[in-house]
Amino acid sequence: MNEVSLGIIGIGNMGTNHLRSILEKKVPGLKVTAVADRKESRRAEARKIAQELDAETAASLKVYEEGKDLIEKDDCEAILIAVPHYQHPELSILGFEHGKHVLCEKPAGVYTKQVREMNEAAEKSDKTFAIMFNQRTNCVYRKLHEMINSGELGAMKRVNWIITDWYRTQSYYDAAGWKATWDGEGGGVLLNQCPHQLDLLQWLCGMPTKVRAFCHEAKWHDIEVEDDVTAYLEFENGATGVFVTTTGDAPGTNRLELTFEMGKIVCENGKLMFDKLKVNEREFCKTSQNGFAKPEMEHIEIETDGSNEQHVGVFKAFTDHILNGGPLIAEGKEGINGLTLSNAMYLSSWLDKTVDIPFDEDLFLQELDKRRKLSKKKEDKGIVFDTKGTY
Amino acid sequence: MNEVSLGIIGIGNMGTNHLRSILEKKVPGLKVTAVADRKESRRAEARKIAQELDAETAASLKVYEEGKDLIEKDDCEAILIAVPHYQHPELSILGFEHGKHVLCEKPAGVYTKQVREMNEAAEKSDKTFAIMFNQRTNCVYRKLHEMINSGELGAMKRVNWIITDWYRTQSYYDAAGWKATWDGEGGGVLLNQCPHQLDLLQWLCGMPTKVRAFCHEAKWHDIEVEDDVTAYLEFENGATGVFVTTTGDAPGTNRLELTFEMGKIVCENGKLMFDKLKVNEREFCKTSQNGFAKPEMEHIEIETDGSNEQHVGVFKAFTDHILNGGPLIAEGKEGINGLTLSNAMYLSSWLDKTVDIPFDEDLFLQELDKRRKLSKKKEDKGIVFDTKGTY
Repeated sequence: MNEVSLGIIGIGNMGTNHLRSILEKKVPGLKVTAVADRKESRRAEARKIAQELDAETAASLKVYEEGKDLIEKDDCEAILIAVPHYQHPELSILGFEHGKHVLCEKPAGVYTKQVREMNEAAEKSDKTFAIMFNQRTNCVYRKLHEMINSGELGAMKRVNWIITDWYRTQSYYDAAGWKATWDGEGGGVLLNQCPHQLDLLQWLCGMPTKVRAFCHEAKWHDIEVEDDVTAYLEFENGATGVFVTTTGDAPGTNRLELTFEMGKIVCENGKLMFDKLKVNEREFCKTSQNGFAKPEMEHIEIETDGSNEQHVGVFKAFTDHILNGGPLIAEGKEGINGLTLSNAMYLSSWLDKTVDIPFDEDLFLQELDKRRKLSKKKEDKGIVFDTKGTY
Repeated sequence: MNEVSLGIIGIGNMGTNHLRSILEKKVPGLKVTAVADRKESRRAEARKIAQELDAETAASLKVYEEGKDLIEKDDCEAILIAVPHYQHPELSILGFEHGKHVLCEKPAGVYTKQVREMNEAAEKSDKTFAIMFNQRTNCVYRKLHEMINSGELGAMKRVNWIITDWYRTQSYYDAAGWKATWDGEGGGVLLNQCPHQLDLLQWLCGMPTKVRAFCHEAKWHDIEVEDDVTAYLEFENGATGVFVTTTGDAPGTNRLELTFEMGKIVCENGKLMFDKLKVNEREFCKTSQNGFAKPEMEHIEIETDGSNEQHVGVFKAFTDHILNGGPLIAEGKEGINGLTLSNAMYLSSWLDKTVDIPFDEDLFLQELDKRRKLSKKKEDKGIVFDTKGTY
């Protein structure tokens, strides 16, 4: 076997993008054999794109209305799930039950309790389970991950991520009926845009033990859910953190700053800057006889390998894992970590208090369900935007 | 009258610095005629410095043990108060009662209730009352203040100040017995190092209406008080903010980012950068038909007048105000604003909840007094560090 057949469930903003990438043969060894979407217009669009880009694939492409039907048939060995978040766990579980390899879009789901079941199903299966954390392919974060894990930076003292460059206009929210509703999507900027950064945060820094968040709903847009969040974090070793995000700032910022015993790291504008100390700050603090002295340091731009394949990188690793057992970009079971962070942030804001991690998953679901009950359906305009360059 | 005679009360780290500046004739129209310090070694040091720098002044310099005695005598028209913070209000009040002009070091005091009395005494007097907010002389903050007040930026949406470049070693805290104790100093990084930024924050952004802070005591140093703070702020118009400070990060950061309807401002490394939008973001959000579109902007480095006189600028304005009625850098009565912010941050952290501004001043004092009672005296080594270049 030197080719993997893929079924794409969901031909919306992201699914369309992925379909194009694969039809354009950007992922050696991966072919699309089936698609599913509940909207006739999207199924027609998928056929049209296939005919334009790859007539051979188009000729044999199976097109389904329901993801469930696609999974139950034998047109593909692997599935890509790109539907609204609530359905990620149930479709993944069905996929494993039918012996499919599963690549799930982020977030893993809407609430950790549901994702825990998905992880259990994956555990029982011998199939590949990956999640679309394409920002882990970014050379800057990969290099930083390597530096942290090597131990050269010493213990982490502080992290501050201003990730406010997820700007969206009102028309973004108006385009799809399920978006930015508690019942349809299950959350706002934390659940839709930030899963990448929340995953990277725990991948780089480990899981916080306490979260105090302030989520503001409908602050910049006419929506039900939050579009502005500030969260304070505490880690097991005493390190603290701040995470700020919004879809309302233009231009926004994407600046990750981390302080370690051996210096300061700033990731911004695709660069990895390191203010490297010559001695450990903890040692210097205790031994210097000058109250105002600072440890000597050098300001370095860290070289990376420059590679940042994004979604294509995730597809390549997924395919290689199935064919040759190579490493994934992000194991599917790790999807629960970033979701734990966003769930904890919501719960903290809803209860107006600091929340410990692990938190009470039943209480979270109860609070989420309260909001789902009051959730109002929007008209579904079914507009799909061009998401090239969007992550 | 074309000269102002000044008495300096407190010849410690900052008082020594100020004495030198004035003796070096950096402030036209201001002469030192008296000094006071409770330590014999500091009185001797003041005499020695005066002899070295200005023999004529040295010959007639009056030297007192107690500030009270200096104030009650007629050797000077104005006083500079540079003693531990608890004594700022009582000495200022005594100064006004004896018809002195008063320039008070920051912070205005330790708790707002006490500072309110100081402001009332100043109000009753016709003398000049100024406070050492020397960072208001900084061309970057002055220019930003001007831009905000002109209205060209529109409403503020977010502020984020990472001010972690107040690094201090353990020896800084060990040098003076009163430092970093609840009873001697009344606080840590918020009260000693941050009054400048807390003043600038309220000067630029207005007063928040809510504060949720996390103050960590003895996190990086063997001290009683806090040396690490993260605070979340909410303003009347709904804008939010984050303020992060510490004396434990090396190298630290001093980065002030503000988002407005008309763009983003970043003050860092002495530069004032403006991402200027062509249209108001609020308008763009509501009218754009593209969900992923962003308003057009240009990236500008704002020119300033380049001037940053710091302490000398404050002295010049203080002298000019007395002689000619010119404007002060910071009115003394404004000292209470930044202190309100730090008091609110302490109270929030102590009570482990969000605090509204104005807060309960009696409750604050009660909580502070609890900590003063448990406060432990340290050995006073009486070490004075060279503070050149320190603000």
